Amino acid sequence: MKKLVNDPRQVVREMLEGVCDLHPGLALLADEDVVVRADLPPPASRPVALLSGGGAGHEPAHAGYVGPGLLTAAVVGDVFTSPSVDAVLAGIRAAAGPAGAVLIVKNYTGDRLNFGLAAELARAEGIPVEVVVVADDVALRDTVPPERRRGIAGTVLVHKIAGAAAAAGQPLAEVAALARAAAGQLGTMGVALGACTVPAAGRPGFEIGAEEVELGLGIHGEQGVERGPHRPVDALVDRLLATIVEDGGLARGQQVALLVNGLGGTPPMELAIVARRALAALRERGIVVERAWSGVFLSALEMPGVSVSVMRLDAARLALLDASAEAPAWPGSGRIEAARKVLAAAPQPPAEKAVAPGPFAPALKRGALAAAAALEAAEAQLTDLDSRAGDGDLGISMLRGAEALRALPEGAWADPPKALEAMAATLRRALAGSSGPFYATALLRAARSLPGVPQPQDWAEAFSRAVASVGELGGAKPGDRTMIDALHPAANAFAAALPEGLAAALKAAAIAAEQGAEATTSMTPRLGRASYLGARAVGVPDGGAVAVAIWLRALAEA
Amino acid sequence: MKKLVNDPRQVVREMLEGVCDLHPGLALLADEDVVVRADLPPPASRPVALLSGGGAGHEPAHAGYVGPGLLTAAVVGDVFTSPSVDAVLAGIRAAAGPAGAVLIVKNYTGDRLNFGLAAELARAEGIPVEVVVVADDVALRDTVPPERRRGIAGTVLVHKIAGAAAAAGQPLAEVAALARAAAGQLGTMGVALGACTVPAAGRPGFEIGAEEVELGLGIHGEQGVERGPHRPVDALVDRLLATIVEDGGLARGQQVALLVNGLGGTPPMELAIVARRALAALRERGIVVERAWSGVFLSALEMPGVSVSVMRLDAARLALLDASAEAPAWPGSGRIEAARKVLAAAPQPPAEKAVAPGPFAPALKRGALAAAAALEAAEAQLTDLDSRAGDGDLGISMLRGAEALRALPEGAWADPPKALEAMAATLRRALAGSSGPFYATALLRAARSLPGVPQPQDWAEAFSRAVASVGELGGAKPGDRTMIDALHPAANAFAAALPEGLAAALKAAAIAAEQGAEATTSMTPRLGRASYLGARAVGVPDGGAVAVAIWLRALAEA
Repeated sequence: MKKLVNDPRQVVREMLEGVCDLHPGLALLADEDVVVRADLPPPASRPVALLSGGGAGHEPAHAGYVGPGLLTAAVVGDVFTSPSVDAVLAGIRAAAGPAGAVLIVKNYTGDRLNFGLAAELARAEGIPVEVVVVADDVALRDTVPPERRRGIAGTVLVHKIAGAAAAAGQPLAEVAALARAAAGQLGTMGVALGACTVPAAGRPGFEIGAEEVELGLGIHGEQGVERGPHRPVDALVDRLLATIVEDGGLARGQQVALLVNGLGGTPPMELAIVARRALAALRERGIVVERAWSGVFLSALEMPGVSVSVMRLDAARLALLDASAEAPAWPGSGRIEAARKVLAAAPQPPAEKAVAPGPFAPALKRGALAAAAALEAAEAQLTDLDSRAGDGDLGISMLRGAEALRALPEGAWADPPKALEAMAATLRRALAGSSGPFYATALLRAARSLPGVPQPQDWAEAFSRAVASVGELGGAKPGDRTMIDALHPAANAFAAALPEGLAAALKAAAIAAEQGAEATTSMTPRLGRASYLGARAVGVPDGGAVAVAIWLRALAEA
Repeated sequence: MKKLVNDPRQVVREMLEGVCDLHPGLALLADEDVVVRADLPPPASRPVALLSGGGAGHEPAHAGYVGPGLLTAAVVGDVFTSPSVDAVLAGIRAAAGPAGAVLIVKNYTGDRLNFGLAAELARAEGIPVEVVVVADDVALRDTVPPERRRGIAGTVLVHKIAGAAAAAGQPLAEVAALARAAAGQLGTMGVALGACTVPAAGRPGFEIGAEEVELGLGIHGEQGVERGPHRPVDALVDRLLATIVEDGGLARGQQVALLVNGLGGTPPMELAIVARRALAALRERGIVVERAWSGVFLSALEMPGVSVSVMRLDAARLALLDASAEAPAWPGSGRIEAARKVLAAAPQPPAEKAVAPGPFAPALKRGALAAAAALEAAEAQLTDLDSRAGDGDLGISMLRGAEALRALPEGAWADPPKALEAMAATLRRALAGSSGPFYATALLRAARSLPGVPQPQDWAEAFSRAVASVGELGGAKPGDRTMIDALHPAANAFAAALPEGLAAALKAAAIAAEQGAEATTSMTPRLGRASYLGARAVGVPDGGAVAVAIWLRALAEA
């Protein structure tokens, strides 16, 4: 058994300690596993107290629902085991005043007996107590009469209804009556994909096939009503809801609340997909979902699976659901809207008007096409280098980039910023892997700093910013065996040689890039896929750096 | 692969639809997997927009953090796959106005490149954008330099810091600077107990032994820094925190925030146990935990495991954490107190003063002891009956009850309500199984309706109420093959024969109980353990009903 626990016999106490540590609104009884609101007024001025509980293993139930507008106390037994009569009685004594207490009990024999006897003992002490039994598991509808169904996740909604009534100062009988009425208008059904392991047992409670699911399973891993083949989740959800809707006689126009409950091991992604279908399936039947929640509310340890609960609403019950409440696991209002909000994408900025070709237009096109031709010619070399330390797609990627550059319309070359932007736009789609983002970012960064008719110093500045953007994007520094090792010395050489003219500066840059690319031969890769090779990459230069040297040389010669 | 999904290729869109369906504050872009706040003002009046995102599979991140005081938009890729540049750009366009946008990016190459290029494209469109990279995984501290660590669950705290700064109207550079500073003061480390399954892959990402754990695992199931034996959770948590504390140089007195994050398949019980130890371990080091949260914040599909994040706080950063925020997955204030609140149990009500023996005292004692003797004599018979349809402990249980009754002090028999209360108190501890609660509840219920010197009609009323309490407690009705089938006719016969005197009424009750018990021979059990036998229990009478007939006969003859 692998669980994040210490001694399996201590899991309940340690869990409750953790819950109370993180939630200052909760206090723990010293001698019983009972969590009580920490902010209770003196007994004489307390409204009706609301208690729930049962075996542990259903977290966040029930301690997570202790707070204003919800439970006054939660009484917790061992995992999947009813708490003792003494624990329940201690809970009632700690929580209730003369206004009395309502105990909300899930319909299991042990819980009924222990909460029921504790209620009788409390009454003998002069505390008025009502017991409300929740039996919401509609999976058992063809097996047992309604009052003998099990109590499962819908119980959380009964907590909310009763908690709101108690917080509003309703008398004991009324709180109990509202809770019973809510429990009577509630149906839940679950499906499990696997079992769970009671810590003290150390192994799963049952076996289930790799492609089987258990429908109608209880929250302690009890037998379900049907074991069947796994199927798409929409079909599973439809099956659960069909039973709930039929059992509850839910007609078109009926207002309901929906609770989608993860059983403990189901990730939020899957719960959201279940919620999506549950909502749609109810709406397809004309049922009006007024409130809906999705999360882990009443679990079965780490069981993978889900339950769906539906409660009938009228205006009064809806108001009780909406009344303010605050507890560690209470998920908030559950308000939803009648339809999903889908937004059209924001419009792209309008294309700028064509610019008349400036003095650099011919040189820009000539340079770019020369670079493209050189990269095309180097395809085999680049493929070979990249195969030794990367995924081998650099040659074909540069070939596609070259084709993309050649396909740019004549207007793309009008002035330097326009030309670099156009090259960025086409290269980011044409270049595979990380080359696309790096080249596109560098070109865009350069374009932003270039005026329409740049002075020599503008080119140097743009080159340097472009190189910086590559480092920023991928986090590489010189020496990491990347294209930076060619670009960085090239930009420096370009700036240094600028007094000799643009052509000289480009030549100096090309030479520096070639030297830089050559120097990567002895560098150990520290980033990207090549880094997994470590020292094994040493001995050939980095393909990305060589490609830089190739197109810089072509530019210089054009 | 068993998951609650439909088409594995549609999981991301369907998940986002479910999330948006349940949260009316969220809107979904029509053409990209981008979730945006539904309540954004016109671009010109928007504060700095805050975007995050990455591959799906980390729910509730990042769409769950979209809302006031947190993210403006979340951009979602395929499972464990960076979103495209176009998706990120669409997100920026949808979320940001002239005040610009901060992109919070977890440190993975794909995310850096795609978010980074989208930022550059947005800048080219005139939207100022800053990129903040989070690299909080301290598991890699001995493997890579700090800036190359992975970004994991601590990212959620960076969202909160930056979101608060943006909501407060801080300018772009300041929001980015605060986010970067927070990211730099943050350490996270995780441990996994198992792997997770990418829906499109259909099988777990790695294998791990039944008693192994993977320390320092990434959130996509990447390799951890160490595979080791499973151990008690406190030891695992201590190991994670030792690395975080050492890496961050956290000294005594340092204020921090703590985030305990479930990786998707870990149930709330285990997370609470982890949180308990994490808090205690930090406090043992003299570190001051100002805020703490436990839950599922940034998951790895259904991976079982947990991560722990610690962020250094100063007053300014604490204020940003505390600023109001509202999003589906934001867990609230995280305020904790310096120590757990533990309450002594409420005092038991004081024992009432001894009552002088009344006129019924001798008969009460005589009757109870006669009943005890009769049950003792019937041990073998009751054991046999119970073995055929129950767990066979009825005989020994009644024997213990008889011993308990004999051990009651003389003062217990003073008057009828006292005697029944005393019998209830001793029998609820002496009787095993469900007999204890049933007898104790019935006796207490009867005691409450009896005056100190009852009239004959008072006895009939008390008997009838006691029988009703048994039905209420367990949910049994006449005909269900339980003790009710002896008690119910007995109470009716008692009331009917009352005009002939108490002795005659008791005799009539005993006869009715015997007939009722005999009638159970042909009844099918419908409650409790015997119900699992169904018709196989038919043919012998119910042991519980026979026990009632036995003690009633003894009472009648005493």
